[in-house]
Amino acid sequence: MVVGIRELTVEWGHCDPAGIVFNPRYFEWFDHSTACLFGTAGIPKYDLPKRFDIIGIPIVDTRAKFMVPSKWGDVLRIETRVIEFKRTSFDVEHQLFKADGTLAVVGNETRVWAGHHPEQRGRLKATPIPQEILDLFNQ
Amino acid sequence: MVVGIRELTVEWGHCDPAGIVFNPRYFEWFDHSTACLFGTAGIPKYDLPKRFDIIGIPIVDTRAKFMVPSKWGDVLRIETRVIEFKRTSFDVEHQLFKADGTLAVVGNETRVWAGHHPEQRGRLKATPIPQEILDLFNQ
Amino acid sequence: MVVGIRELTVEWGHCDPAGIVFNPRYFEWFDHSTACLFGTAGIPKYDLPKRFDIIGIPIVDTRAKFMVPSKWGDVLRIETRVIEFKRTSFDVEHQLFKADGTLAVVGNETRVWAGHHPEQRGRLKATPIPQEILDLFNQ
Amino acid sequence: MVVGIRELTVEWGHCDPAGIVFNPRYFEWFDHSTACLFGTAGIPKYDLPKRFDIIGIPIVDTRAKFMVPSKWGDVLRIETRVIEFKRTSFDVEHQLFKADGTLAVVGNETRVWAGHHPEQRGRLKATPIPQEILDLFNQ
Repeated sequence: MVVGIRELTVEWGHCDPAGIVFNPRYFEWFDHSTACLFGTAGIPKYDLPKRFDIIGIPIVDTRAKFMVPSKWGDVLRIETRVIEFKRTSFDVEHQLFKADGTLAVVGNETRVWAGHHPEQRGRLKATPIPQEILDLFNQ
Repeated sequence: MVVGIRELTVEWGHCDPAGIVFNPRYFEWFDHSTACLFGTAGIPKYDLPKRFDIIGIPIVDTRAKFMVPSKWGDVLRIETRVIEFKRTSFDVEHQLFKADGTLAVVGNETRVWAGHHPEQRGRLKATPIPQEILDLFNQ
Repeated sequence: MVVGIRELTVEWGHCDPAGIVFNPRYFEWFDHSTACLFGTAGIPKYDLPKRFDIIGIPIVDTRAKFMVPSKWGDVLRIETRVIEFKRTSFDVEHQLFKADGTLAVVGNETRVWAGHHPEQRGRLKATPIPQEILDLFNQ
Repeated sequence: MVVGIRELTVEWGHCDPAGIVFNPRYFEWFDHSTACLFGTAGIPKYDLPKRFDIIGIPIVDTRAKFMVPSKWGDVLRIETRVIEFKRTSFDVEHQLFKADGTLAVVGNETRVWAGHHPEQRGRLKATPIPQEILDLFNQ
């Protein structure tokens, strides 16, 4: 299974008055981590709409558990993988590690493979995930 | 049970290239909605540390389900309430409604009543929620 | 001359580890203040593209002077006005006041009235500001 | 003179409904670029308060000129340098280049070397920049 790995440094502006990362920042990071995962799998996320004639892969459900806070200057590693492909959606898990290997945050998201609705222009419709995607991720 | 209600307008800068609210923005909004809820209950969130000698009420777990997207100019209403007080933590639920009353997003968060650790300076320790807080929210 | 006025409360998530508003937040606020100014003048900013066949009114130059910091819970008032209409661009000024009337931040931005480029699809071209806009703001 | 150089990729969440980077994001990037510049000069920005007994180096004036927009997936290079050290403040310039070398944005900021006010606790006072800093940047 493909794993996306990226490192980032916690910036001053990511942190709140308690001196730790403000929780919405984790969701920003996870969103980009999913994009990176597609790049790692061999297809940049921004190529998906054109290549598969879909609207995108919007999040319908997301969750994060915060075990250890991070602060300015911390170097973090995010490991991202698809933990399950269903018929028209898939579940992504992000594990965020501190430099010493401590697992600090776990994020989960469910994304829909959203095609164009056949009758209502601009609306989306959950659509079966193409075999090509399954193959790319199962390398 | 106290309910916090606030309205907000979706701004251009809240939205992504798909023209809809970028998901981390909801978590920003929910964080402030919890702060507002404490204000509605009669104690501003920023008074908590001094008044109860705690470090704060950090989030340990948060989740959101996105049913309907929102876009630039939409007027949204967020209703926030504590759905359960446990001994040293509490669960908050945010319901985000569109102007026509459609429930668009449901957010849930678990926050810890975090006192000062008796032995390790700067570390926090889950501490029983004071009766005064329970009373304020059960009005 | 039309003046846009709005109030906002500084949120926990707007502030950095120094406990004061992180400077990019002011630019978020100013961007929305300009949108509000158009609403006050009688034409919502999101109606501009369709109504005047333009791409938008992008910022080409922006500046802010920070005199007094703001912190969590502060109630701020932003006053926004166009200080000059030129032929194809206009200058906006934002004055941000604290609750006691202190002028805390002054923001300036130059925006272009950006029409569609006649030859290159998707590119923009500075275009004369319509008389209707000048009239709306000179009420 | 020391030059800080860093690369970043434009993320989906950095962009607005026009598909281009929302301008406050540039100020987030520039803030971190100044932090990186201090690291390059040999002293991490987060070590400044303790090492020089100051409160920090807050921005009092900032400006950006936007020549070319950037969009999702663009790889950008930011070059940051101090263009002038004055007695108690210094001017930083950020040049943001696209992958093809086009200069897309120029940002300028003035920061104050802010020591502790001798009489009013918590207030800051512009203080002469130490020779050690000048030496580090003039390598």
